[in-house]
Amino acid sequence: MDYFNAPGKNHLFVPGPVNIPDQVIRAMARNNEDYRSPAIPAMTKTLLEDVKKIFKTTTGTPFLIPTTGTGAWESGLTNTLSPGDRIVSFLIGQFSLLWIDQQQRLKFNVDVVESEWGEGAKLDVLESKIASDSAHTIKAICIVHNETATGVTNNLAKVRQILDSYRHPALFIVDGVSSICALDFRMDEWGVDVAITGSQKALSLPTGIGFVVASPKAIEASKTAKSLRVFFDWKDYLKFYQLGTYWPYTPSIHLLYGLRAALDLVFEEGLENIFARHNRLGTATRLAVEAWGLKNCTQKEEWYSDTVTAVVVPSYIDSTEIVRRAWKRYNLSLGLGLNKVAGKVFRIGHLGNLNELQLLGCLAGVEMILKDVGYPVKLGSGVAAASAYLQNNIPMIPSRI
Amino acid sequence: MDYFNAPGKNHLFVPGPVNIPDQVIRAMARNNEDYRSPAIPAMTKTLLEDVKKIFKTTTGTPFLIPTTGTGAWESGLTNTLSPGDRIVSFLIGQFSLLWIDQQQRLKFNVDVVESEWGEGAKLDVLESKIASDSAHTIKAICIVHNETATGVTNNLAKVRQILDSYRHPALFIVDGVSSICALDFRMDEWGVDVAITGSQKALSLPTGIGFVVASPKAIEASKTAKSLRVFFDWKDYLKFYQLGTYWPYTPSIHLLYGLRAALDLVFEEGLENIFARHNRLGTATRLAVEAWGLKNCTQKEEWYSDTVTAVVVPSYIDSTEIVRRAWKRYNLSLGLGLNKVAGKVFRIGHLGNLNELQLLGCLAGVEMILKDVGYPVKLGSGVAAASAYLQNNIPMIPSRI
Amino acid sequence: MDYFNAPGKNHLFVPGPVNIPDQVIRAMARNNEDYRSPAIPAMTKTLLEDVKKIFKTTTGTPFLIPTTGTGAWESGLTNTLSPGDRIVSFLIGQFSLLWIDQQQRLKFNVDVVESEWGEGAKLDVLESKIASDSAHTIKAICIVHNETATGVTNNLAKVRQILDSYRHPALFIVDGVSSICALDFRMDEWGVDVAITGSQKALSLPTGIGFVVASPKAIEASKTAKSLRVFFDWKDYLKFYQLGTYWPYTPSIHLLYGLRAALDLVFEEGLENIFARHNRLGTATRLAVEAWGLKNCTQKEEWYSDTVTAVVVPSYIDSTEIVRRAWKRYNLSLGLGLNKVAGKVFRIGHLGNLNELQLLGCLAGVEMILKDVGYPVKLGSGVAAASAYLQNNIPMIPSRI
Amino acid sequence: MDYFNAPGKNHLFVPGPVNIPDQVIRAMARNNEDYRSPAIPAMTKTLLEDVKKIFKTTTGTPFLIPTTGTGAWESGLTNTLSPGDRIVSFLIGQFSLLWIDQQQRLKFNVDVVESEWGEGAKLDVLESKIASDSAHTIKAICIVHNETATGVTNNLAKVRQILDSYRHPALFIVDGVSSICALDFRMDEWGVDVAITGSQKALSLPTGIGFVVASPKAIEASKTAKSLRVFFDWKDYLKFYQLGTYWPYTPSIHLLYGLRAALDLVFEEGLENIFARHNRLGTATRLAVEAWGLKNCTQKEEWYSDTVTAVVVPSYIDSTEIVRRAWKRYNLSLGLGLNKVAGKVFRIGHLGNLNELQLLGCLAGVEMILKDVGYPVKLGSGVAAASAYLQNNIPMIPSRI
Repeated sequence: MDYFNAPGKNHLFVPGPVNIPDQVIRAMARNNEDYRSPAIPAMTKTLLEDVKKIFKTTTGTPFLIPTTGTGAWESGLTNTLSPGDRIVSFLIGQFSLLWIDQQQRLKFNVDVVESEWGEGAKLDVLESKIASDSAHTIKAICIVHNETATGVTNNLAKVRQILDSYRHPALFIVDGVSSICALDFRMDEWGVDVAITGSQKALSLPTGIGFVVASPKAIEASKTAKSLRVFFDWKDYLKFYQLGTYWPYTPSIHLLYGLRAALDLVFEEGLENIFARHNRLGTATRLAVEAWGLKNCTQKEEWYSDTVTAVVVPSYIDSTEIVRRAWKRYNLSLGLGLNKVAGKVFRIGHLGNLNELQLLGCLAGVEMILKDVGYPVKLGSGVAAASAYLQNNIPMIPSRI
Repeated sequence: MDYFNAPGKNHLFVPGPVNIPDQVIRAMARNNEDYRSPAIPAMTKTLLEDVKKIFKTTTGTPFLIPTTGTGAWESGLTNTLSPGDRIVSFLIGQFSLLWIDQQQRLKFNVDVVESEWGEGAKLDVLESKIASDSAHTIKAICIVHNETATGVTNNLAKVRQILDSYRHPALFIVDGVSSICALDFRMDEWGVDVAITGSQKALSLPTGIGFVVASPKAIEASKTAKSLRVFFDWKDYLKFYQLGTYWPYTPSIHLLYGLRAALDLVFEEGLENIFARHNRLGTATRLAVEAWGLKNCTQKEEWYSDTVTAVVVPSYIDSTEIVRRAWKRYNLSLGLGLNKVAGKVFRIGHLGNLNELQLLGCLAGVEMILKDVGYPVKLGSGVAAASAYLQNNIPMIPSRI
Repeated sequence: MDYFNAPGKNHLFVPGPVNIPDQVIRAMARNNEDYRSPAIPAMTKTLLEDVKKIFKTTTGTPFLIPTTGTGAWESGLTNTLSPGDRIVSFLIGQFSLLWIDQQQRLKFNVDVVESEWGEGAKLDVLESKIASDSAHTIKAICIVHNETATGVTNNLAKVRQILDSYRHPALFIVDGVSSICALDFRMDEWGVDVAITGSQKALSLPTGIGFVVASPKAIEASKTAKSLRVFFDWKDYLKFYQLGTYWPYTPSIHLLYGLRAALDLVFEEGLENIFARHNRLGTATRLAVEAWGLKNCTQKEEWYSDTVTAVVVPSYIDSTEIVRRAWKRYNLSLGLGLNKVAGKVFRIGHLGNLNELQLLGCLAGVEMILKDVGYPVKLGSGVAAASAYLQNNIPMIPSRI
Repeated sequence: MDYFNAPGKNHLFVPGPVNIPDQVIRAMARNNEDYRSPAIPAMTKTLLEDVKKIFKTTTGTPFLIPTTGTGAWESGLTNTLSPGDRIVSFLIGQFSLLWIDQQQRLKFNVDVVESEWGEGAKLDVLESKIASDSAHTIKAICIVHNETATGVTNNLAKVRQILDSYRHPALFIVDGVSSICALDFRMDEWGVDVAITGSQKALSLPTGIGFVVASPKAIEASKTAKSLRVFFDWKDYLKFYQLGTYWPYTPSIHLLYGLRAALDLVFEEGLENIFARHNRLGTATRLAVEAWGLKNCTQKEEWYSDTVTAVVVPSYIDSTEIVRRAWKRYNLSLGLGLNKVAGKVFRIGHLGNLNELQLLGCLAGVEMILKDVGYPVKLGSGVAAASAYLQNNIPMIPSRI
């Protein structure tokens, strides 16, 4: 069923689910297979090894759980913590809010540190809490690397530095849903204990794999954590890892083949090149927003996100109408403003399998929509600013030199 | 990555994941989409309505959770029960065993009723427990409709009859993972409160949707059930159903389109025709097993399963070698014997998108493998028995008359 | 084998082969079928009927030949003409040149009427030839509706008017390869006798079907035409049309299913809406070219093509470098200048399954490339001009209002 | 549009178009590309090299023409011969008949040597003609390697031997449509001058590439051959081969990628292993036919075809009804009897991407159909005979040992 067809391609610029490379779509166009044949474990072994490279860890243990980011959150928390445990968690937008809601419903004792939406996590507050917690009542720090609702990237290296300064043993649990494989994420270097992402984000797959990577310390914690869990329990995975059959229950054959293809593309392009491409797209977007005379929801440059830009619209415009019209008239999918910023911002996702001309097409579309809804934008201005930057910075495609 | 290629088609006869129709594979070969655009809710609405028809319910509420059958189990249990609740659960094979393990780890008070593997659930024991539970300490009956490990189908109508005879209010929770959409399942008529299946079974999709359908009584129970849950919580779904946006977190766009295509095929073929086809394939398989002089693991005809047949091999043969050789020499995927019956049985899955000649090809292969491993089978005998039956019973394909 | 991968989508703006809708790609992802089963003739019947609508004919007979446009040309000529026949043919660019080469090699007596490249067919010369041919020595007029090399659209109504003025019986043979299904083409109204197109152009399929539609007069001519032909012979098709099996030799099952899907999309969007969309894209492109200060290869507005724009570059720039760099740096595919205009023009194809934001992305890319190669373009200028026009003229997508 | 759906896979056993490997279907599920970018020539170069290996030639020049086998025939003939040229051609079934019809319509002087249908080419007659042609009036010998209508394989080595014995310079033109890549074909060793096949046969692709491979002698002949040709002219290809751009007109991007994937699979399996597999499937089929008490249309063992078996039915049965019923009741596609053997034979194609259990499923189906139509077959008998042979002869799948 293809409701709502339209000529040409859809321009998918929500911050997830993102555009899937054609190679990956092809890799997934297949029948099911017996996941107990030798083929699937052989492939799984390579996937687990390669996923570690994406997270920049050599000591972590990855779990590819058939779930979404929300389930991956739950797996990360319930395997390492017990009800009543005190955790410090940063509320800086809709997705950190939802995670905190989950933490509370799972009966942790959540010490919420709230920022204005558009600001980063208050790491000074973290420092004072850590400094005063010589009793080590804080069991974990939970933080989003990148808040998808506001386009804010937090400084994770700084979190580690604070913990180390005070030799504090709290677990460091990171939601990397809209960052990992797009922004530089260094699990081992930053001493992250649990890192989480979802397949439909920068890895550019369909929804359906929740990635959870656990440090040795997190694995150790899972042995005593008392949160109830079965589906999300690492123990069952670890048992089947030992057996070499890998899967405690049926995985999606399609997503495994898709992930294999996606990882092959990642390594072909090069992880650092991917980060550079995302920086290029993020910078170009911000230059366009500036040229339009609009504000970035992100308050300071240090928090700028290279995966999503939340654009603040003037008060006389409803950003929901921008998103509605983008889809209805231009076959362009933009992200809505959520919760506190509903109606006030719209979001341009620029993560995953995307290139510069796709982004420029999107920006040209946004300009027209802004005019449609009554904002006095100068058509072409955002594209001019973005392309002036890009024209000087796009490298030759390595495989095509 | 295509490890282990082989000429021709793989003959996929494990009892899940099963063969996907080409129409469904095509429907899923697509890019991601914004699940907050009007298109996905519009499609989701039709899916929820149509899933109810598969479960034969008009009053149930379906949840299409991005998970596997194991996750669907967990959702069914945690939304309706509280830790410490007494439940009666039937252990008749590996999958009921795993479910009971989950029930125990979720801290229910599980009253396990065990049968020999190959026998059905002891409903007489259920009756005596229900009869003596005038205090209604039993909160739920948990039973598999079809035990995938042994090929045993339980009589669910009988369960309902027992509960009704004693006006017992226990919730009736059914694992229909290897039955629903292949065997006749009547949620409303049988008064089932929670019914569960997975996308990779008779619906013939990839793994990734855990279907949970809740009766009004189950929905009511969910309001007071105290098991912790977030990802699996029905409450979040119900909130988004009210909003008309349907999804509390990102669904798999691919599986939604795949499910739409799968349901279209189901209704085109007709649910009753599908049941008849499965009965035909099951009967033919059993006739072949008999012709080979082998025993069906299922002890009595009343428990015969039309979705999977577990075949007992003579003690001098290791059934694992049969499965290994099937894949390595014949490109045929059969099911292993699990746990108590490991090495003793192999399984032929005959559910999902499958037709008679595919089955006969499989049976011809099994005959050759039996000979390979030293069993004195008469080649052609099983095919002869099966095709004598089929030749008299296959109807014309309705769309082609 | 995927040589030369690059992140994101390729921006395909050559004037053929063009972008294929996802729905069509999906429709073609299938196994072969027996083309002698009842299914293929049943589908073929609908295809032939619907192809006639695209050509705006009720009396024509379509042939869907497994070949390319070059083969379709040959079929159109050899079925209606005999060696030695005098034909008037217009040379206005590379593709009319190739067609004339074919006509000469097929031993017709070709009366070539040449224009400067960038100008339309000299219909005044045609008129004088027709006027002076009271003996009816001219057997056919061969003309391209749209010259793909220069972006020139000829006035076919005028050709018919000339022939009618002099009651001249010459066959009217039209290459509609880069026009039909994108530009308004009226086979019956204009009295076209043989109309030709290829699947990889505006119909947005892979290469592989050469469409030839013959008027009753052309069918009549085929009975006496003496050019040798077997593979391209209409006679064999007509025989199988009579039998109701349609195919004298094996067709591509894939392209038939693809064509079915493509036609469904055409009728869903509406043929007149498709023409309007192409006019919108063509106009926007021309406005951008003008804003860049560059010249359109097409000399007069009356010849402007809504399917391809050939852009003339300053003499100090090699247009080949523009095309090379577009692909290597921006993953953008543009058309080369051919033959007489090699190095002097590059071409933007804007036909087939394409929308406005895709075009704007392309135009933004072209601007950057122009700057790359040393042309002093003002970045954003073309996009501004194009989007100012588009913002006022893009309608809501009908299916999404 | 999917008319006539049916549950499960279609069992495709016509002798072309044949089953396409999933890897190839996936490789073709893609958008178009600019065939003038560097990618397509780079891939084409590998294709041409690898196609030569399939034909077992190092000196031949391959042409991959966007056409069918019929077009490939025409290309082979018109490039090497002139109207009026005397050629010896063998009529042994419907496809050699059609080729002879083409030869006559192309105005060659065809010396037809006819056999009973079911017999091989009369090479003794060839010998006497060659022996008596010291004037070398015979310009070419045209012969099918394998007659698809009757399942007869001719001895090509013998043809070469005859020509050599008399040092006769006639061109040796071979239709290998239903043989090449399934039967051992040795272009160089046998001194074949023009060899032809189609993509939808043993190469297991969709229809759309006509393969013509020309020996140096054939290339030489093409320089003076006077048959009119343009689309099929090798000259244009040779010109573009020189340029390194390879394509005189637009190829099917899809088929090129499909061919690349198909060739990769061929070399992975190994050409000699492919021949052995076809011999295995052919032998098994013949044993089944014998067990059913039916006659092979092929009169002598020396002519037995490993790609297609034509089965003669008793006179009281109409073989057309067998084919009709196979499709309508069993979703099995068999080949019709054609022309002289219409109603008298049905055909089982066992070429291309196919394995043993698929064949056994087909044979089981044929048995049931035979019973349906009133033939007193013993069900299981053919499968028993075939599997007794196969069980002793199927090797382990090399990639899975």
